[in-house]
Amino acid sequence: MTTPEKCFEQLCQHVRQTNLLTATQALLEWDQQTHLPIQASEFRSQQITFFAGEIYRRQTDPRVGDWLGELAQTPLAEDPHSDTGSTIRELQREYNRKTKLPQALVEELAGLTSRGQTIWVEARQKNDFALFAPTLKQIMGLKKNQAAAWGFDDCPYDALLDEYEPHTRTAEVASVFEALRVDLVPLVAEIADSGIDLPIDILERHYPPAAQRKLALAASRQIGFDFERGRLDTTHHPFCTELGPHDCRINTRFDDSFFSTAFFGTLHEAGHGMYEQGLRSDWYGLPPGKYCSLGIHESQSRLWENLVGRRLSFWQHFYCQTQDFFPQALNDVALTDFYRAINRVEPSLIRVEADEATYNLHIIIRFELEQELINGNLEIDDLPLAWNDRYQQYLGLSPPSDALGVLQDVHWSAGLVGYFPTYTWGTLFASQLVDQATEDLGDLDLLFRLGNFRPLQQWLKENIYQRGMQYSPRELREKVTGKTITHQSFMRQLREKLAPLYGL
Amino acid sequence: MTTPEKCFEQLCQHVRQTNLLTATQALLEWDQQTHLPIQASEFRSQQITFFAGEIYRRQTDPRVGDWLGELAQTPLAEDPHSDTGSTIRELQREYNRKTKLPQALVEELAGLTSRGQTIWVEARQKNDFALFAPTLKQIMGLKKNQAAAWGFDDCPYDALLDEYEPHTRTAEVASVFEALRVDLVPLVAEIADSGIDLPIDILERHYPPAAQRKLALAASRQIGFDFERGRLDTTHHPFCTELGPHDCRINTRFDDSFFSTAFFGTLHEAGHGMYEQGLRSDWYGLPPGKYCSLGIHESQSRLWENLVGRRLSFWQHFYCQTQDFFPQALNDVALTDFYRAINRVEPSLIRVEADEATYNLHIIIRFELEQELINGNLEIDDLPLAWNDRYQQYLGLSPPSDALGVLQDVHWSAGLVGYFPTYTWGTLFASQLVDQATEDLGDLDLLFRLGNFRPLQQWLKENIYQRGMQYSPRELREKVTGKTITHQSFMRQLREKLAPLYGL
Repeated sequence: MTTPEKCFEQLCQHVRQTNLLTATQALLEWDQQTHLPIQASEFRSQQITFFAGEIYRRQTDPRVGDWLGELAQTPLAEDPHSDTGSTIRELQREYNRKTKLPQALVEELAGLTSRGQTIWVEARQKNDFALFAPTLKQIMGLKKNQAAAWGFDDCPYDALLDEYEPHTRTAEVASVFEALRVDLVPLVAEIADSGIDLPIDILERHYPPAAQRKLALAASRQIGFDFERGRLDTTHHPFCTELGPHDCRINTRFDDSFFSTAFFGTLHEAGHGMYEQGLRSDWYGLPPGKYCSLGIHESQSRLWENLVGRRLSFWQHFYCQTQDFFPQALNDVALTDFYRAINRVEPSLIRVEADEATYNLHIIIRFELEQELINGNLEIDDLPLAWNDRYQQYLGLSPPSDALGVLQDVHWSAGLVGYFPTYTWGTLFASQLVDQATEDLGDLDLLFRLGNFRPLQQWLKENIYQRGMQYSPRELREKVTGKTITHQSFMRQLREKLAPLYGL
Repeated sequence: MTTPEKCFEQLCQHVRQTNLLTATQALLEWDQQTHLPIQASEFRSQQITFFAGEIYRRQTDPRVGDWLGELAQTPLAEDPHSDTGSTIRELQREYNRKTKLPQALVEELAGLTSRGQTIWVEARQKNDFALFAPTLKQIMGLKKNQAAAWGFDDCPYDALLDEYEPHTRTAEVASVFEALRVDLVPLVAEIADSGIDLPIDILERHYPPAAQRKLALAASRQIGFDFERGRLDTTHHPFCTELGPHDCRINTRFDDSFFSTAFFGTLHEAGHGMYEQGLRSDWYGLPPGKYCSLGIHESQSRLWENLVGRRLSFWQHFYCQTQDFFPQALNDVALTDFYRAINRVEPSLIRVEADEATYNLHIIIRFELEQELINGNLEIDDLPLAWNDRYQQYLGLSPPSDALGVLQDVHWSAGLVGYFPTYTWGTLFASQLVDQATEDLGDLDLLFRLGNFRPLQQWLKENIYQRGMQYSPRELREKVTGKTITHQSFMRQLREKLAPLYGL
């Protein structure tokens, strides 16, 4: 008879081999975004589809179920937060989710969302929601089937949310988002009524891309991204991807007449990247060495992008270097004016261009709508109207077209439902993390003014990175901060920063 | 009962799926050479080893043998030069070669050559052949076992040569190389005795790498490399790799104080690349859409690098552009001086830095020695002395150290035995091709002076690229030129070019 330890090793060995494939799949996709010759995409799709099938086959291999079944009753599973216990728990969770879906549904969804993205691109170009509506109906139908196959207690959307933010319920998110909205909408109105409009024209001067790239490299290196174990490349859509335990690639785009796109985009992706680089490499691709949830991941990117990157003390350290990189654009600009420009708050129509404050209203709208679509309180045909109503209500704006409204994001066409809320969920937690880090490390501004980001990175490494999936997102948050998730840290920090800028 | 057509389709389907893996393997390797973060190489090796195993498993799948067995007696196999006939013939050949090797030998050789390259690097650094000798003995021992497993008629080296240059015998290569040497050694001596030394200092001025890259892109585009189906990237060791039917990547290195490295290196790799791009993409990875042999491949790179790229008419078209890219280095240099510099012939110790003429003497030495090692006429311990003797005899030079002698090439440490002769084998054929193209297309110089490389590329496409492996290398050569391989075209063209330069 085989010992639990041997059984555990077989299971891990199987997963480690699968990880060789998933890392390869990630390389195929990274290369597609950054280097692939234009005529090579058809063959690349064939490769990606083939590997998706192989990976699925390995993940649903009945032996995985057998090993997990054997291990469940052994001492290795006893402590759910230990390396072995969390491995068994999380692999069982993944196995259940994979095997509960009928193969036909998986394939139908893959095909539909692949076509769906093409149709969405066309519909957005033509500003024609009706062109996309039939496909979106089909996609949402399949997502409901997916939710039913997975099972849920309260509502179908729970099952979808759980894919990205494990063990998190719709009702909890709805209640926190509601409280956030109730505080945030008046703050944004107060800013609009202040009569102060922070000018951003200095950010729209000419910023040579080569110098932007050098600055982005310097900044991400200084905050702690390790270039011996990662890279920075150029792409159309910024992203961060992990191609192995020591190979994290962040990708950004350069707009030669807007400073913020590449700079804050790179800080954001570097925040994701530092999380990946800080995971335990000896457990690569296994739960103790995997990121906890999308919300926790986003807390890391938002923390470095906004809570560090848009902070006065960061720029007290960093502004001189920045002026040296862009003498023509910035030599006549005082630090205070630069700092004001990068912190302007103003309602806008497009999520990916939104500021730190109003961004979350964009997310709340998407969360509310997709939840209603899945739970059956909203029909696709009524979606554009509902979208525009909500923008009017929360942001005081009416989208002049569906292209600038309901058709702006790729997510739904790609079958990503339950994904949007993790952006704001992570943002809220990032603020709670900064409060806790301040308690543990003292005044962060004293460190940042000296360009010393290492204590914060080390603190995150100990408290977040190195814990992988040992704890559920909720457990992890409570272990680090001692608190449940709320919007209060976020709102307080935001108000403290904006009050002097807008004379609130 | 299944029809021959269905059986053929199953076989092709299996190979096409394997090709998804081999193309992925090629991407893993390309990325390793061009982008991989320094600390990521261990994991990348694991991926490459894993895929090597998967690919081997698929290539030796007994079903392949069964399908081929069934097909051998059908009408599909009747015409050996048809698409189906050449597919069946060449896949059978590959299947035999793969399955004849015991798994243990394959693994032992993979492990030994992987370690062997590391040991070779150290031995070369320390200029210590004795450090490398025991490993080289083991490698050559395994290569002999490999030859025995494959089987041969005349001598063991035949079996190894056949891996890179199918259906080619050692005796034939030896006889052609002997004739070449007998003519080439006196020509090189004549040049040395001419009292003329073409100065190359103008090639050693400062050439900014960014401009070199632009020129390399322009030149490879103009001769016909398709950048919608390929790329040019930077690497330490120049190479060309194919990552799919429409994804050929050439890689070069830039030396800021030597013009020739990147420029002629890129033309060389672009020549390989145009062959790959000209293959029939609907038969991608199957014999009708695969390159014929390493020798034929090398004929394509040498043709564009030397027979086009070092030709006066090429530079009559191209030199003005080149001066525009490097005004500081070249504005005071006349075309004739530039042309003389890029055609200097002078014996040297290092193969990869050798000129167009003496390069082949480096190859002949390696061919003679490795052949003697495998066939048992030379011992490893006597190799350095034999190497140095041969250099003295053919090139009039005595290597001052093994690092600059027998330890200079990676090939043997990597288990590549039988590979070297294909370099010169291809070079000789390239000259025969140019003779034939001149007969078919008329005076090539008239075209090149106008920058018109398309007729030659089209001619190669029809005569070489599109034929894939339908013919054996010998058949292909004879089909295109009507001649067996000889050194005569090469020697005549070389002498015609060099005579006016050296007053011969």
